[in-house]
Amino acid sequence: MGKEELNGGKSKRSKNPLDPEEFRRQGHKVIDFLADYYLNVADYPVRSNSQPGDLRRLLPDHAPISGEPFDAILRDIQSFIVPGLTHWMSPNYFAYFPSSGSTAGFLGEVLSSGFNVVGFNWLSSPAATELETLVMDWLAKALGLPESFLFSGGGGGVLQGTTCEAILCTMLAAREKTLRKIGTHRVADLVVYASDQAHSAFQKAARIAGVQPENYRTLPTTRADLFSLSPDLLRRTISKDMEAGLVPFFVCATVGTTSSTAVDPIKALCEVANERNLWLHVDAAYAGSSCVCPEFRHYFSGVEGASSLSLNAHKWLLTNLDCCCLWVKDPSALTAALSTDPEFLKNEASESKKVVDYKDWQVALSRRFRAMKLWLVLRTHGITGLQSILRSHVAMAERFRCLVAGDRRFEVVVPRTFAMVCFRLRPAAGLSSEETNELNRRLLEGLNESGRACMSHAVVGGDYVIRLAVGATLTEQRHVDSAWRLVQQLADALLGAAIINGR
Amino acid sequence: MGKEELNGGKSKRSKNPLDPEEFRRQGHKVIDFLADYYLNVADYPVRSNSQPGDLRRLLPDHAPISGEPFDAILRDIQSFIVPGLTHWMSPNYFAYFPSSGSTAGFLGEVLSSGFNVVGFNWLSSPAATELETLVMDWLAKALGLPESFLFSGGGGGVLQGTTCEAILCTMLAAREKTLRKIGTHRVADLVVYASDQAHSAFQKAARIAGVQPENYRTLPTTRADLFSLSPDLLRRTISKDMEAGLVPFFVCATVGTTSSTAVDPIKALCEVANERNLWLHVDAAYAGSSCVCPEFRHYFSGVEGASSLSLNAHKWLLTNLDCCCLWVKDPSALTAALSTDPEFLKNEASESKKVVDYKDWQVALSRRFRAMKLWLVLRTHGITGLQSILRSHVAMAERFRCLVAGDRRFEVVVPRTFAMVCFRLRPAAGLSSEETNELNRRLLEGLNESGRACMSHAVVGGDYVIRLAVGATLTEQRHVDSAWRLVQQLADALLGAAIINGR
Repeated sequence: MGKEELNGGKSKRSKNPLDPEEFRRQGHKVIDFLADYYLNVADYPVRSNSQPGDLRRLLPDHAPISGEPFDAILRDIQSFIVPGLTHWMSPNYFAYFPSSGSTAGFLGEVLSSGFNVVGFNWLSSPAATELETLVMDWLAKALGLPESFLFSGGGGGVLQGTTCEAILCTMLAAREKTLRKIGTHRVADLVVYASDQAHSAFQKAARIAGVQPENYRTLPTTRADLFSLSPDLLRRTISKDMEAGLVPFFVCATVGTTSSTAVDPIKALCEVANERNLWLHVDAAYAGSSCVCPEFRHYFSGVEGASSLSLNAHKWLLTNLDCCCLWVKDPSALTAALSTDPEFLKNEASESKKVVDYKDWQVALSRRFRAMKLWLVLRTHGITGLQSILRSHVAMAERFRCLVAGDRRFEVVVPRTFAMVCFRLRPAAGLSSEETNELNRRLLEGLNESGRACMSHAVVGGDYVIRLAVGATLTEQRHVDSAWRLVQQLADALLGAAIINGR
Repeated sequence: MGKEELNGGKSKRSKNPLDPEEFRRQGHKVIDFLADYYLNVADYPVRSNSQPGDLRRLLPDHAPISGEPFDAILRDIQSFIVPGLTHWMSPNYFAYFPSSGSTAGFLGEVLSSGFNVVGFNWLSSPAATELETLVMDWLAKALGLPESFLFSGGGGGVLQGTTCEAILCTMLAAREKTLRKIGTHRVADLVVYASDQAHSAFQKAARIAGVQPENYRTLPTTRADLFSLSPDLLRRTISKDMEAGLVPFFVCATVGTTSSTAVDPIKALCEVANERNLWLHVDAAYAGSSCVCPEFRHYFSGVEGASSLSLNAHKWLLTNLDCCCLWVKDPSALTAALSTDPEFLKNEASESKKVVDYKDWQVALSRRFRAMKLWLVLRTHGITGLQSILRSHVAMAERFRCLVAGDRRFEVVVPRTFAMVCFRLRPAAGLSSEETNELNRRLLEGLNESGRACMSHAVVGGDYVIRLAVGATLTEQRHVDSAWRLVQQLADALLGAAIINGR
């Protein structure tokens, strides 16, 4: 046992586990630890080199009997945990959609965790609920959403953890609304619709909600339509299902799909949904944030016809995980599906109906004070600050696209719409489609194994493509340029450096 | 515009939103802010005095166009947010079940938020997944759970946000298992069981899972049975339902109900469930943590017969919100109900089946790195530290019980089992049951309005009772004593101070 443990030991353990001065001392250490982490994170292998079981082999298999000193724990985090992380905060991280943390988003989470209030209803912490209603109206205005999604317009917003929960809750609202009309026993007749590019969250929500697997319609898209959902196909499929005696009730449209950032035509899809009185949810998990910039707002055109819309502020709005913003036009549909009224939560404010009780807008009862971090982000950066940050990501992605387009060994697979580029090595003469896919798979694996950048893949129209998504907050142009040079070097090695190419 | 804004303005905004030195500077300020908050929190009115709309009236109705300096935002938090909070961290907080934050739990959350990894599968951050499997095994051992709930025994644990999600996920696992046998179209025949004391999370989960409302069985309990679920009644009800052609599939038993900390007889209930091959989930949201102390472990006796068990480390295990620990005996039942396998997440490690992909153990895809905070709590305090903290809460509750029992105007309504006391003013001569309830309602409202303590209520066997739950981390004996004096003073005023009483 080291000197430190002897020092820290008895006196520390006799203190309250939330002793304010000990909290202060350790808190400062953790802030310095994280600041140093951000200073160094560019140098770490982006994707962890861990093998399955590595961490469990390094750590004891029982909790300690006696408490351990904080400094020893912090050292273990540096020695054992950090090497096992895939560094989403690295400037060289371009995989999936990056998680967009920032100082403001982080500090908001820190304050929420410090206050540690459980805002299930208004009374349990009025400011937590009211800040959430405020910040959801603020953001709706900043995105140019129609008044009907704001509290002042009869709608309203709520912070969920993730898009999965947002889609599930809206689907449940739509389900209950429909079953109230046709009878709850007809749940097996319900049908849901989305494109084959929709996020897996759509199918998972349908499964949880008890929709029969044969009643998930994932409608095919085409390269010619840039992988967007065809309103005509949706209309025809709905009609066919109705003729078969089924009950279409929910459509999920996407603005910015995960595979290729495809954008479904919201206006036309809403028209189809509204003809048949279906609930249409807009999943704008990634791309929704872009609408703080007027030049992207046209992708939401027609959204006034939708029933609900969600985006993840933790994806592209500088807010640390988790923070999914969901707006609905008719909150009563949500609360009719999700409200409970146990005796122990009864109170005058709730009964007055003058307040929002967010427990009835989500799956869980307990909820963290997520509004704080989104409020801090909006205030710290302001609308113009957010615009300039998002535009810088778009500009970096566009520059990457130009670099790819300038090397004739490569192709950009779909047009760049936001801050993500889908590219691949072109099919070379004599290579089959599967061989081309395999070559790209090896290129990506080599890149991720190098630890110098991290990207991910998709399969789009049968083609294996590499996705570079700019969005990690520390990323600068030089990191994007390095990532491209790395791609080229790996391509040189894969294809044979002697081949003369267009660079 | 103040000098500060001029200072902080341009230069700050030109920096990266995650500039490490700015992060460090602001991070230290927030730590000091929270340390000071804990120093002062005992002096704040525990339940906020806010009126509906107060906060929204104080704040602008649009996000700012330009960013604002951090110090101004922090001042607003002190001026506008703090007065609108109900202070769950106050030592005078005794309502619901307190949220049990601590320095270790807080710092774990801070580190997770700083790393900001999205651990949907093993590959996306191996250490996040492996630390979670480790810490769930550690805690299972500390609680004396059977080997069959550990990864080493073929089971395993996962960190969910809340009990609502844990009950929902286990119910979905049980639903899918049952429907695979009887056909998915028979969802309307499914029946679920719990006592009338079970948490509203049970009914909410059943509703989300598409169980027909007429098929929720909330079985009546009695005062004679201390409000615990009768195994005989359960057996008879299940038989009756089966005879009617329905399909019983899920039982939720509770260790430590919200109203009165009643404990269902786990062993006998598991026997009933196992006779009929039903899934039995043990909801030990509050009281489960007590099993780190051997003297409480007998309440889990027979748990080896259950299919799953959950407890909230954010309720009584020093871990900041949110942290619900769920163990299941058969993880494949969970993943069969909740897994998705989208192309963009495919990877070698997952295909090798050597790793856990927690996305398939929960509703959401994205997930925070919650294991960090639970690991920090277990290491910082060790098993003996946690035991002594929980025992101190129990001792304080027991002392409060004695104080109540020593004042003949009051009665303790049910025996104290953990760290919660249910009490009320006794029915006085000539008062109806409803008048007695009203008197207690006024007593509680007066207490909460005073701001000097915060408690909540339940209705138990028709009686309105006041609940004092010890568990807020800063609470010491003197705070419990003060709360009792406050109760007495309010009773004096309500009943007339002139009445000679037994004190």
